[in-house]
Amino acid sequence: MFEKYFSQRIKNTPSSFIREILKVTQNPEIISFAGGLPNPVSFPQDELKISMNRIADKFGSKIYQYSTTLGLDSLREYIAERYKKIWNMDISIENIIITTGSQQALDLIGKVFVDENDNVMVEKPSYLGLLQAFCMYRANFVQTKLNDDGLDIDDLKNTLKTYKPKLAYLIPNFQNPTGLTYTPENRKKVFEAIKDEDMILVQDDPYGELRFEEGARIPYIGLNETEKNLYLGSFSKIVTPGMRLGYIIGNKEIIKMLETAKQASDLHSNIFGQYLISDYLHNNDLDRHIEKIKKLYKAQANAMVSAMEEYFPKTVKFTHPKGGMFTWVTLEEGKDVLQLFDKAIAQKVAFVPGHPFYVKPDKVNTLRLNYTNADTDTIKIGIKRLANALEEI
Amino acid sequence: MFEKYFSQRIKNTPSSFIREILKVTQNPEIISFAGGLPNPVSFPQDELKISMNRIADKFGSKIYQYSTTLGLDSLREYIAERYKKIWNMDISIENIIITTGSQQALDLIGKVFVDENDNVMVEKPSYLGLLQAFCMYRANFVQTKLNDDGLDIDDLKNTLKTYKPKLAYLIPNFQNPTGLTYTPENRKKVFEAIKDEDMILVQDDPYGELRFEEGARIPYIGLNETEKNLYLGSFSKIVTPGMRLGYIIGNKEIIKMLETAKQASDLHSNIFGQYLISDYLHNNDLDRHIEKIKKLYKAQANAMVSAMEEYFPKTVKFTHPKGGMFTWVTLEEGKDVLQLFDKAIAQKVAFVPGHPFYVKPDKVNTLRLNYTNADTDTIKIGIKRLANALEEI
Repeated sequence: MFEKYFSQRIKNTPSSFIREILKVTQNPEIISFAGGLPNPVSFPQDELKISMNRIADKFGSKIYQYSTTLGLDSLREYIAERYKKIWNMDISIENIIITTGSQQALDLIGKVFVDENDNVMVEKPSYLGLLQAFCMYRANFVQTKLNDDGLDIDDLKNTLKTYKPKLAYLIPNFQNPTGLTYTPENRKKVFEAIKDEDMILVQDDPYGELRFEEGARIPYIGLNETEKNLYLGSFSKIVTPGMRLGYIIGNKEIIKMLETAKQASDLHSNIFGQYLISDYLHNNDLDRHIEKIKKLYKAQANAMVSAMEEYFPKTVKFTHPKGGMFTWVTLEEGKDVLQLFDKAIAQKVAFVPGHPFYVKPDKVNTLRLNYTNADTDTIKIGIKRLANALEEI
Repeated sequence: MFEKYFSQRIKNTPSSFIREILKVTQNPEIISFAGGLPNPVSFPQDELKISMNRIADKFGSKIYQYSTTLGLDSLREYIAERYKKIWNMDISIENIIITTGSQQALDLIGKVFVDENDNVMVEKPSYLGLLQAFCMYRANFVQTKLNDDGLDIDDLKNTLKTYKPKLAYLIPNFQNPTGLTYTPENRKKVFEAIKDEDMILVQDDPYGELRFEEGARIPYIGLNETEKNLYLGSFSKIVTPGMRLGYIIGNKEIIKMLETAKQASDLHSNIFGQYLISDYLHNNDLDRHIEKIKKLYKAQANAMVSAMEEYFPKTVKFTHPKGGMFTWVTLEEGKDVLQLFDKAIAQKVAFVPGHPFYVKPDKVNTLRLNYTNADTDTIKIGIKRLANALEEI
């Protein structure tokens, strides 16, 4: 009825695959590895309750009033200090804008950089939230192959030469959907290949803090070597996603443009939530809290990988995540993951078929599994059910 | 340095006038009528503190977890019930999407409806937040003259005939920036003029509840007579703006499209804030709370109008708002409001010159004054200062 009024961008947006899947998984009998939810036991509820009462007493009406577009100073100071300490970044709060979750960071970056038909490079497969966000600005996506050690360097060079992308979007740590992490060597090669290109590099890092296998943090691509980098972070996976608080770190000139875009988008992010998270961070040991989450997720990831090793046919490959929230499964060449999905639902287990992570999904034989939102026993039962489904295709 | 990377839309966005003005008003000696802040004494702080502790105890981790894009059911139910009761609307929660403040409602409507160069009709003058939001989608604005009783019907008919706008954006109650309200007769004429047009009508209504002069609520244009209407509402002016909670009411098919756009924009609005406001609304008498705000603002508006009547030269005209937050001042033809602004700052009083409310600001002799965020004594002093500045131009 309203077709003629709708914009081209919204008419060209594929209806959300995942939303349809989540409807199926409403059935409580189904074990769902489809979502990307943090385990709710990881939320610091007691500490947050203390913080909310403290900010109500301390700041009065300020926690309810309109506020600034860039975000609360004390929260941006915490972020600046943390990145200075960990990465030796030369930044101040002027290099930081608070966003309404990382999803808004993607929307704002689209608003500020992407004109219709601009080439944007993403991983293959890539995060579906980015594809949705940039779809709104009618980007032309080019996908570069992702290997076990990071971007495929030959494919990357070819992409750069052929498409001269204006912007690249990468998730170097525990990528969504694959769980893969770029090695230090791969990051160096990627930076070598892109450093002289006219290209903004966005590194999205919601999972970087969740490294649960041994090994130090790996520096970002081109860290402290270029002004053309934007770094995205989020409190969703390490404190709480419901507050919708993420941030972008970058050159001040770019942050100013993002501020203009944010003003047009929602004026500012919920200020109560900013006071709450800032108070929590300034009065608790975030690293100690993260250690608890890592321990939890490590056990869950191990349970999933062990169960897959035990029950899956040997023709099925999967990644061994060292952090983050997902593993990525690849079926034998020629198998159809949608057929598997139907069989899996019949077995009462759900996952996300690979389709929404590709720009041009064709014959897809991949799927994403999330392990953070189920206990180890449930994970084992779910993987058994999935193994049964695998035998039927 | 980054100029070449920026999108056309962001390069064409005028740098925010108001942001520059607000910098000037940081000086505590300046009395500012420039902002649009609710009076913080109107925030129900005690009740909100009770509600936040109650939801923490009652809902546990749910108030911190990811949630649905359309928004919390109980909050949407409250809104549906209120609009059914007041306006006899035939709606359910499926007709409602929660937005991150009304500003996001504007952004989402832009995303869903506006292609580059689409004609969008707005009032002259119009709300600058809408102009900023739709600027991102490169709308072609056409402004229709606003009179004391509402839209100028001849100008409206001419606009419709000449530009065939795809969408119109109006603020029928206590408009921002003018404080004007469309009369019932004017609304009927407007609907008569537009009802057969291929046009979506957006009625933004953040101030409608704040009618402090006698008189009943005036029904929306085309209320319950068309499916092409969208109604915007907000909790910013009647509970708290810091939570960033607004909503759109409309046909289900349109709400579905807005949901897709919102998913790409920020996934969902802060869920803690939604639980908090929902709990507050379900456990307190909103109408009684609104009565208190209206009494407060009525005194402040009267103080401003009385002071203007007493001190301003008779050549200066101004609106007599019956609700809302603003009055609109028109200088003698040929006077330059920017010259007045400089003199006013020297007198230590600030306002918003009319420029950002026009699509093509030329010789502007209008300005907006806000009266909600200063007590009556301060308002009187500020208006005296402004009268002094008026004598100097």
